[in-house]
Amino acid sequence: MRHACTSRKGAKNTINMNPENKAQVGIIMGSKSDLPVMQDAIDVLKKLNVPFEVTIVSAHRTPQRMFDYAASAAEKGLKVIIAGAGGAAHLPGMVASITHLPVIGVPVKSSNSIDGWDSVLSILQMPNGIPVATVALNAAKNAGILAAQILATSDVSIAENVKSFKQELKEAVEKTATEVENTSF
Amino acid sequence: MRHACTSRKGAKNTINMNPENKAQVGIIMGSKSDLPVMQDAIDVLKKLNVPFEVTIVSAHRTPQRMFDYAASAAEKGLKVIIAGAGGAAHLPGMVASITHLPVIGVPVKSSNSIDGWDSVLSILQMPNGIPVATVALNAAKNAGILAAQILATSDVSIAENVKSFKQELKEAVEKTATEVENTSF
Amino acid sequence: MRHACTSRKGAKNTINMNPENKAQVGIIMGSKSDLPVMQDAIDVLKKLNVPFEVTIVSAHRTPQRMFDYAASAAEKGLKVIIAGAGGAAHLPGMVASITHLPVIGVPVKSSNSIDGWDSVLSILQMPNGIPVATVALNAAKNAGILAAQILATSDVSIAENVKSFKQELKEAVEKTATEVENTSF
Amino acid sequence: MRHACTSRKGAKNTINMNPENKAQVGIIMGSKSDLPVMQDAIDVLKKLNVPFEVTIVSAHRTPQRMFDYAASAAEKGLKVIIAGAGGAAHLPGMVASITHLPVIGVPVKSSNSIDGWDSVLSILQMPNGIPVATVALNAAKNAGILAAQILATSDVSIAENVKSFKQELKEAVEKTATEVENTSF
Amino acid sequence: MRHACTSRKGAKNTINMNPENKAQVGIIMGSKSDLPVMQDAIDVLKKLNVPFEVTIVSAHRTPQRMFDYAASAAEKGLKVIIAGAGGAAHLPGMVASITHLPVIGVPVKSSNSIDGWDSVLSILQMPNGIPVATVALNAAKNAGILAAQILATSDVSIAENVKSFKQELKEAVEKTATEVENTSF
Amino acid sequence: MRHACTSRKGAKNTINMNPENKAQVGIIMGSKSDLPVMQDAIDVLKKLNVPFEVTIVSAHRTPQRMFDYAASAAEKGLKVIIAGAGGAAHLPGMVASITHLPVIGVPVKSSNSIDGWDSVLSILQMPNGIPVATVALNAAKNAGILAAQILATSDVSIAENVKSFKQELKEAVEKTATEVENTSF
Amino acid sequence: MRHACTSRKGAKNTINMNPENKAQVGIIMGSKSDLPVMQDAIDVLKKLNVPFEVTIVSAHRTPQRMFDYAASAAEKGLKVIIAGAGGAAHLPGMVASITHLPVIGVPVKSSNSIDGWDSVLSILQMPNGIPVATVALNAAKNAGILAAQILATSDVSIAENVKSFKQELKEAVEKTATEVENTSF
Amino acid sequence: MRHACTSRKGAKNTINMNPENKAQVGIIMGSKSDLPVMQDAIDVLKKLNVPFEVTIVSAHRTPQRMFDYAASAAEKGLKVIIAGAGGAAHLPGMVASITHLPVIGVPVKSSNSIDGWDSVLSILQMPNGIPVATVALNAAKNAGILAAQILATSDVSIAENVKSFKQELKEAVEKTATEVENTSF
Repeated sequence: MRHACTSRKGAKNTINMNPENKAQVGIIMGSKSDLPVMQDAIDVLKKLNVPFEVTIVSAHRTPQRMFDYAASAAEKGLKVIIAGAGGAAHLPGMVASITHLPVIGVPVKSSNSIDGWDSVLSILQMPNGIPVATVALNAAKNAGILAAQILATSDVSIAENVKSFKQELKEAVEKTATEVENTSF
Repeated sequence: MRHACTSRKGAKNTINMNPENKAQVGIIMGSKSDLPVMQDAIDVLKKLNVPFEVTIVSAHRTPQRMFDYAASAAEKGLKVIIAGAGGAAHLPGMVASITHLPVIGVPVKSSNSIDGWDSVLSILQMPNGIPVATVALNAAKNAGILAAQILATSDVSIAENVKSFKQELKEAVEKTATEVENTSF
Repeated sequence: MRHACTSRKGAKNTINMNPENKAQVGIIMGSKSDLPVMQDAIDVLKKLNVPFEVTIVSAHRTPQRMFDYAASAAEKGLKVIIAGAGGAAHLPGMVASITHLPVIGVPVKSSNSIDGWDSVLSILQMPNGIPVATVALNAAKNAGILAAQILATSDVSIAENVKSFKQELKEAVEKTATEVENTSF
Repeated sequence: MRHACTSRKGAKNTINMNPENKAQVGIIMGSKSDLPVMQDAIDVLKKLNVPFEVTIVSAHRTPQRMFDYAASAAEKGLKVIIAGAGGAAHLPGMVASITHLPVIGVPVKSSNSIDGWDSVLSILQMPNGIPVATVALNAAKNAGILAAQILATSDVSIAENVKSFKQELKEAVEKTATEVENTSF
Repeated sequence: MRHACTSRKGAKNTINMNPENKAQVGIIMGSKSDLPVMQDAIDVLKKLNVPFEVTIVSAHRTPQRMFDYAASAAEKGLKVIIAGAGGAAHLPGMVASITHLPVIGVPVKSSNSIDGWDSVLSILQMPNGIPVATVALNAAKNAGILAAQILATSDVSIAENVKSFKQELKEAVEKTATEVENTSF
Repeated sequence: MRHACTSRKGAKNTINMNPENKAQVGIIMGSKSDLPVMQDAIDVLKKLNVPFEVTIVSAHRTPQRMFDYAASAAEKGLKVIIAGAGGAAHLPGMVASITHLPVIGVPVKSSNSIDGWDSVLSILQMPNGIPVATVALNAAKNAGILAAQILATSDVSIAENVKSFKQELKEAVEKTATEVENTSF
Repeated sequence: MRHACTSRKGAKNTINMNPENKAQVGIIMGSKSDLPVMQDAIDVLKKLNVPFEVTIVSAHRTPQRMFDYAASAAEKGLKVIIAGAGGAAHLPGMVASITHLPVIGVPVKSSNSIDGWDSVLSILQMPNGIPVATVALNAAKNAGILAAQILATSDVSIAENVKSFKQELKEAVEKTATEVENTSF
Repeated sequence: MRHACTSRKGAKNTINMNPENKAQVGIIMGSKSDLPVMQDAIDVLKKLNVPFEVTIVSAHRTPQRMFDYAASAAEKGLKVIIAGAGGAAHLPGMVASITHLPVIGVPVKSSNSIDGWDSVLSILQMPNGIPVATVALNAAKNAGILAAQILATSDVSIAENVKSFKQELKEAVEKTATEVENTSF
């Protein structure tokens, strides 16, 4: 699936003009069962007005497809890849081994996981030379935000959206703070 | 310390022209005792010809300094921050809470660490809204590479350097492979 | 919210006379979702007749607010701060870095926590110089009691209340012991 | 051993006047082998000019002595107890069960410890009703600072010492920061 | 509660004649909430015809009661103590520190436990000199069997009961094995 | 239970002709409560047309039966043994100590397991000399596939079935990938 | 090796008279490399005047020998078995499955152990029906004391020795306590 | 390196005649730094007279080489692959995803490993469909034995060698047992 951001306000002012609204972030996951977790990345990228595409790529069941995806990612215009996987989660690291694009790994807590430690360590503990930018367990939302922050290093429009997003977070806390301060315990 | 890359070949062709060779990556760490680990980030950024600066910022002993560093980072031209810390490692997450720049966290295995789990979890498990791009325990080298990959999304020169670096890694393995294949066990 | 203890029996005899019933304990938490856990601190402080106030302060989403809260805490009369947070729980440690008041940290087991290890280690493993008095996972009740014990070092009224509380705990166990001893299994 | 702070500047102005310089903090540990770790608490209390006493009390080998120590602690003028222990570390929790004084627990990583997890969890995970203020593994220095912070809630002289101590920490970081910034990497 | 085994077949032939059917095993637990787990010890001791008594003893909330229980256990005829506790489980170890009787510890997985690790390590990792015979998490049934095995070292009647029990276990497995072998998958 | 594969297509062409369709894989488990997990091994062996047998063998409750099973396994024609067990899972390792056949161990997450770590480590960490081929927690399906892969080293028919199975896995992923790509998020 | 305790003072008064000084405790271990750890059990049993024997029995390399040892242990007069093993430590549990004698398990931290967790969990987490009395990692001394405590349930001489031993532990702590109290820090 | 077993006694009787002594086991590892650990696999395969080859293949630094190695392994006559790797160890699982041969994974404890947990979990916790036969941490010797056991399912000569090997293990234990039994402690 490809998400074209038709209403990208201010996009024409950015350095990386992207007139065709081509996907800049590729979201992949090892299995469709990871989609409920990965949906958070989709939602926040939409909110931040970052064009993305989504598909299923399994390192273990479709190794060739994984290879082809990673090898062609830069060429087709992707700038960041978000890869979610559970258990012995090899997808983020293997994609990172093939492409030179930054890869964000989302450890997914799957059903037979050993409390999530397996996916966390399989993604995080990459050897020297091949980093994966790992986020918290199931934190696909943070993966989306991080992808936007990366793009924002050269796209002032996305940078503005990230700043607004952080402002909203702050205001939401302040609102609940006021509520709590006015609660009689 | 500021590292100006005088010989940045092809830099003028990049989108993010950086004529003054201003630091694009800020490397910070909680204590000077983290420097031996963080040196790997310095070395790889030099190798990849990415201008950087280095200093000490302690979230716990100099909270105001940490605040000021994070709040002014974008303004002074930094595009990515690498923050290393051990134990209850709050530096990467706190910097990420203040700036909108992407922050890369390096968990450092310090002397009284509980096997490194404390710094890994303190950096990785950030709440929704405030990601830290976490790399492996003590993996400052990968933090440097990841910073370069992030800059490479809009700087073709750095992108070329990253690609060359990956090629070297490959060739080094192939060389040892040949050695091993010719060993008589 | 500020809880004034109108009926503090014997308060006038204490060394730290507190005629205005100003809050002596500040209870803060990173998110309103921590409130069900932190309510136990509120309840036990009411029981022990210790005046307190409650609000939401997020280290990551409202860093400036956190700064201001910590920096002004002593001045406005607080003597102890109880801070609860989950995941990469930086709130207790960051508050402790800013104020010289004793800070009690409550690791909260949040939904995407890795079994609570993340918040426990993020709060407990503070570097030398900046202690956080950490209590058990979700143990906000113990945080409240500990705050009272700290105040009791100079307030005989609170000391009496803590002693009575311990006596009640003892009597409750003795009562169930008698029940069990009279049960026919 | 009892440490009388002869030069307690400003002590006469404090609420808790302590003309005889009686120990206010009791430092105990399960075994003399814990002393190298616990020495850090001694050193920092001396630095902060807090009078203390030190002895060995083993919950498991001298249970009656432990009982007597805890039961008489408040009476003899102690205001805070620091208890260090390794392995199945029951000393801090048992002392906390007997006295109403605040007890600070220092998990000590002993030789047959399972990476320190045993002492950390044995001290931290106290049941509701009986808190132990737990500090990081081997962090006796932080235990000493925390004891001072607790006393500082009613002793302005100690409060000043704690503030100075924090200021020194800050200045030490700033000094190394300058060094690092002037290093050519 | 005291369980007198009126029908102890062959009891008169044992070395440790126990004409009054006095409790030989004391089952204690830190809280009534541990009873559903500890019930398995009660049930298996009844099945193995071992007289026992049950009560609540909290190391933390009733330290004096714990002391008195442990100090008088041998005198009143108990030969083995089974102690169950959760979290920072100090009851088994503290009882073992006071009595010379063998103490069997049952780590109970309580609600705020960190996956049971806290009670397991608090009970298991006793220092040299004071053993606790630890069984698996929640394995009160095994604690009961172990108590019977200990008594069986000098009581042939209980020894016979233990042997019969093991024979029953074997036969139950053989029965399900036959069922499974005859299942058509 | 013995599963004769009447329709083994191409079986007559294999090197290990097996005209009687004798069981080649023995599936055992410590308790009938493990059957829901172990059913996945049964199902995948049927799918891969590998003849097998199933029974219950408890290392702890029927040690002699376990001995006899392992000692006679090779003689009666079994070539691979799959053993599933939970907790202190000794069945796979003990069977491996007695037979020279390859033994595949399936760690089963049982009810009082400590998150599955106990069965994983009890099966995996075999001493030098006696390997157990360990699969993931509850991964009986993978145990079945691995058994087929082992037989496939000398049975081209099973090899073909394994290859087809892998092809199906791939196609299933590709199908869901297409679905996801056509979803509008 | 068999250790006959020639000087067992008061032995003639015990219920279990043992005129021939036959071994009552069997100490076994999986490998001679475990002997340095298991020596502590030997030493303490000698000190407590308990006759014992020592040998090597490997569950995995000599399963039949293990079987024979366990099956004949009670008959030859042993009353308690101490079994030490590392890694996937099956020896204590397998011996317990065969004999009805109480079995004490000593988890040994071997070289490729995963921090000792493997041996701890493999010994501790026995299924219902077959307990192993587990002591701390490498705590062979405690295994010896526990064996003596078990025998002491019917042997007043050993009971006296255990009590004296506990008295010595106490006095040793009191002596170091006095030393520490007289140290000037 | 290819090891031709010139003296394979009885090889001509095996079903899988291998006149050219072609390598049947492929040993690969992610880095030459893994060789000291993997040497044990080499040594035991030589001892068991199993022809093998050795090389370096890095999943992350030479992904294409890994692909090619795995895709051609069966064709060139390999029957089993042993893959060792540390940290986020993706090599065994990725090779298993590409070939239908059985893959044995050796978790290697590398320098920045988190106690070996990372490599253990990255190799063990493979998703359904793609098993890796995992052995203990650093247990390359067991990987070699397991490979021989797999080949022995259709090669009587190797089967005899495995049986002899197990017999030797047994005799070595019996010898040390006699030594220990004759030691006077």
